[in-house]
Amino acid sequence: MNAFKPTPESIPPPAVSYRLRIPKGLPVHRHALNPLAFVLRSAQIYPDKLAIAHPDVPYPVYYTYSVWTQRIQNLAYALLQAGILPGDRVAVIAPNTPVIAEAHHGVLAARAVVCPINSRLTPQEVAYILDHSGSKLIIVDHEFKHLVQGAKAQVIISNDTGRSGDPYEGFLSAGRKFSGEKGWPGLEWERDEEAPSTLCYTSGTTGRPKGVITTLRGSYLAAVANAYETGILPMFHASGWTYPWAITLASALQITLRSVSYPHIWNHLLSSGVTHYCAAPTVQIGLINAPQARRLPRPVTAIIAGSAPTAHLISELEKIGINPVHTYGPCTKCYGQPSWASLSLENRAKHIARQGVSFLTADETRVVYPPKEGGLLDSELVDVPKDGNTMGEIVMRGNIVMKEYFRDPEATRKAFRGGYYNSGDLAVMHPDGYIEIQDRSKDIIISGGENASSLAIEQELSSHPDILEVSVVARPHPKWGERPMAFVILHPQKLDKWTGKYDEFENDLKKHARVRLPGFACPEWVKVVDELPKTATGKIQKIVLRKAVAKL
Amino acid sequence: MNAFKPTPESIPPPAVSYRLRIPKGLPVHRHALNPLAFVLRSAQIYPDKLAIAHPDVPYPVYYTYSVWTQRIQNLAYALLQAGILPGDRVAVIAPNTPVIAEAHHGVLAARAVVCPINSRLTPQEVAYILDHSGSKLIIVDHEFKHLVQGAKAQVIISNDTGRSGDPYEGFLSAGRKFSGEKGWPGLEWERDEEAPSTLCYTSGTTGRPKGVITTLRGSYLAAVANAYETGILPMFHASGWTYPWAITLASALQITLRSVSYPHIWNHLLSSGVTHYCAAPTVQIGLINAPQARRLPRPVTAIIAGSAPTAHLISELEKIGINPVHTYGPCTKCYGQPSWASLSLENRAKHIARQGVSFLTADETRVVYPPKEGGLLDSELVDVPKDGNTMGEIVMRGNIVMKEYFRDPEATRKAFRGGYYNSGDLAVMHPDGYIEIQDRSKDIIISGGENASSLAIEQELSSHPDILEVSVVARPHPKWGERPMAFVILHPQKLDKWTGKYDEFENDLKKHARVRLPGFACPEWVKVVDELPKTATGKIQKIVLRKAVAKL
Repeated sequence: MNAFKPTPESIPPPAVSYRLRIPKGLPVHRHALNPLAFVLRSAQIYPDKLAIAHPDVPYPVYYTYSVWTQRIQNLAYALLQAGILPGDRVAVIAPNTPVIAEAHHGVLAARAVVCPINSRLTPQEVAYILDHSGSKLIIVDHEFKHLVQGAKAQVIISNDTGRSGDPYEGFLSAGRKFSGEKGWPGLEWERDEEAPSTLCYTSGTTGRPKGVITTLRGSYLAAVANAYETGILPMFHASGWTYPWAITLASALQITLRSVSYPHIWNHLLSSGVTHYCAAPTVQIGLINAPQARRLPRPVTAIIAGSAPTAHLISELEKIGINPVHTYGPCTKCYGQPSWASLSLENRAKHIARQGVSFLTADETRVVYPPKEGGLLDSELVDVPKDGNTMGEIVMRGNIVMKEYFRDPEATRKAFRGGYYNSGDLAVMHPDGYIEIQDRSKDIIISGGENASSLAIEQELSSHPDILEVSVVARPHPKWGERPMAFVILHPQKLDKWTGKYDEFENDLKKHARVRLPGFACPEWVKVVDELPKTATGKIQKIVLRKAVAKL
Repeated sequence: MNAFKPTPESIPPPAVSYRLRIPKGLPVHRHALNPLAFVLRSAQIYPDKLAIAHPDVPYPVYYTYSVWTQRIQNLAYALLQAGILPGDRVAVIAPNTPVIAEAHHGVLAARAVVCPINSRLTPQEVAYILDHSGSKLIIVDHEFKHLVQGAKAQVIISNDTGRSGDPYEGFLSAGRKFSGEKGWPGLEWERDEEAPSTLCYTSGTTGRPKGVITTLRGSYLAAVANAYETGILPMFHASGWTYPWAITLASALQITLRSVSYPHIWNHLLSSGVTHYCAAPTVQIGLINAPQARRLPRPVTAIIAGSAPTAHLISELEKIGINPVHTYGPCTKCYGQPSWASLSLENRAKHIARQGVSFLTADETRVVYPPKEGGLLDSELVDVPKDGNTMGEIVMRGNIVMKEYFRDPEATRKAFRGGYYNSGDLAVMHPDGYIEIQDRSKDIIISGGENASSLAIEQELSSHPDILEVSVVARPHPKWGERPMAFVILHPQKLDKWTGKYDEFENDLKKHARVRLPGFACPEWVKVVDELPKTATGKIQKIVLRKAVAKL
């Protein structure tokens, strides 16, 4: 760490002002909310505190808040030099590295919009997003430069070295020179907090990816709510749920890992003083099953999102000193209640696995009856009863909801019907006001007039000892309208057992289902497959399964 | 506590919605910031958690969040029934009681402006504020009803009992009936976050009190920043620095005490699980000198504001397990640095006694050269160097600065000259970016062309062993322009020593000063007095001393 020297242009001048030029004509009591404020404030208060550690790479780098903030400023000037204007989109394709974290601040400092693109997408998908977003400049990690071959926009490659000679470093250093040492006061604070901060694309499970626009105000308020957690969440994912800013708000140190590597994660958990991390249940499972896993020397908070943690997972995490915090969106959090302390682990885990209630600055989250056919727009939404049983759709509104889908007014109108963001997630509302997700609305199976949750069916089927993974979709049925069809991957050790006997397996699984599920929810068809179609973020693409079913 | 039963009208209905009506036509991603959100959210998440404990009175009361929120709703409806319209001012005169805390939420729920009035003011001062604010309704604690005799507005008296028969309870219960059980959805969320939330009057050390308007947005963002502290600060004081809302944001319990009673405070520190309290240094001194003082069983955070704590005070607090946090405004905080841990207590205390840097959501605080004569408005403000030596004025701008002085555009214009709020506090900026107050600008003494800080002179003079309290003001001098004059109260045990020998004391004190202060800062005149003129909040009224000096 002591061996590393930031580039000369990363070193701030002796007397540094962290104040951007204030736009003329604003009232004294108005300052546009902007998450850029946090890193400036941390640099002012704790200039010598480490902001970024990027240790597990051939060229490790470590930046203090003062150095890192200078780099962010350099990036802003470099973007201005490249002709980026306020409101322009700047794309970033990189794993968790200092570069993508810097972009979340530097692009905003240039009053442009950061557009982080999932590095696991195909070149075609990336091309679509680059075109749709109209990105004028692309910052790309060397590992992913093949994704942007042929792109019309200017491309800046980062070799993730932080050393002179790296094209990205050259870009930053030129920005510093271009600044003429005007520093932060040479840049203007965006006067409109409704201006976009980020443009993140959906993973497109149901069609073309949609571009989600978040405002500066929304990012600021969401980061405030997230401030006391920090993460190892891939930053390309929904701009890391605002953690790139929330971490700087808390003047914390973020450790960036290019990939999910359990040895590296365990090394940092045990030796680097990690206090918080974010991960979906699948990564949490990998974490506790890693050979390095052991009881932690100090309490660590794990933010779990993406899907609900199981009781088993919660118990395993707690055993080694990890405190699970379950969030959804993230716009709700499952707040623990004092009374839960006396519950059995299984019962408590069931409570924790629920999505919970709206969190700070998130305003409203409701579970409502689906709007009637033909009455989609501005209909009066009606809450389902708090009975833990009646299914409705999760809807939300308020300051941390996206502003719109970029260049897609029709999708925006549809998403905002009834004056709320329609999540497409089906849930029940419990008597204590906590939300529990049942399914995605498009994944529900209407079997004999009954709503069958594909999620619930999958959970029961996956308890069959020979199953590794299972996905359930609706298949048209002449009598019942729809019936569930299950696509199954067998456990590798059970493959031989069923070779040539898939009919027997089907009967066995149906028997397994019948004692666990109501008749209308039992799978009518079972198909053993070698793999399931997944998105770049690991979600099963049910739309592909449904298309396969349609051809049957 | 179990013996207490809230009035029947304080009990919420079984199925309660905490959602106010959303104004028509707002975008999905916009929800007007309003600190009322916090108590609603806490009631939703933790309905059975205690929100208010008011134990040390003849009629103790305890309210859970669900009950307390119902009372807040009742108050809102009662105000509507009384004819209060959006933007109307509702005055509250009460010591720390549930009533004044309720008003900070209930008045906002009625979309009116809460105007807390200092209960230590004279009837004439109160009459002026009631008239200037145009308050349409007054809620007053029975102990202070003499302050509003003859008021033209409707007066609701609280006997601080929380029981049926109390006029305030009758007001609330009638409000519940008036609501027709429409509940929260029967009230509308204020659509304009720039609408005023509070109207607080200055203590008027220099003339007529001025009415400070804060917006809903400002109160929300300030409460967010204060959220992790809770207080025993008198709530009439600048609306308790937003703590009435910050406490509910943290879903914390507030213990209300009608007055500063050290036995009661110590009882709660030792037995009620108190984690945070706010107090000016003078109250902190009383606290550590109380006979009940002892080492605390758990760490407690003390928010110190009003004036800088001395090294002695900080050391005494730390000795008994109290962690002092020094704030100013509150818009800056003296953030502790890791490197301070190795300093001597005296040196560390000097660091802690500084006012520090802007805190979360507070945007900018600067120390600037005084604007030139005749160039007061919109002049370019210039920062003093960060040398810990050059004096300038503290100025600030941004979301938690007041919006205006109510009905006083001239005072507003003057306060906002240069596009910043001019605090009138003189300070230096240290090389580490921390602000340290030297004096109020009007208290500076220009002696032989040198700026002498009356604060610094008082600090040195007060180290004379026979002095209890001292105040220093400028007195015109034919040769030097101005020279310091000291008004001294002798220590009670030293009164006899100096009886009839005030000349000798004067010489003794001057000798004491000469070895500690530069010549221009030594007092030219010393006057022994029995008492010093003070405001209702305990501040010395230097304006009165200056008037006395003008007649000499």
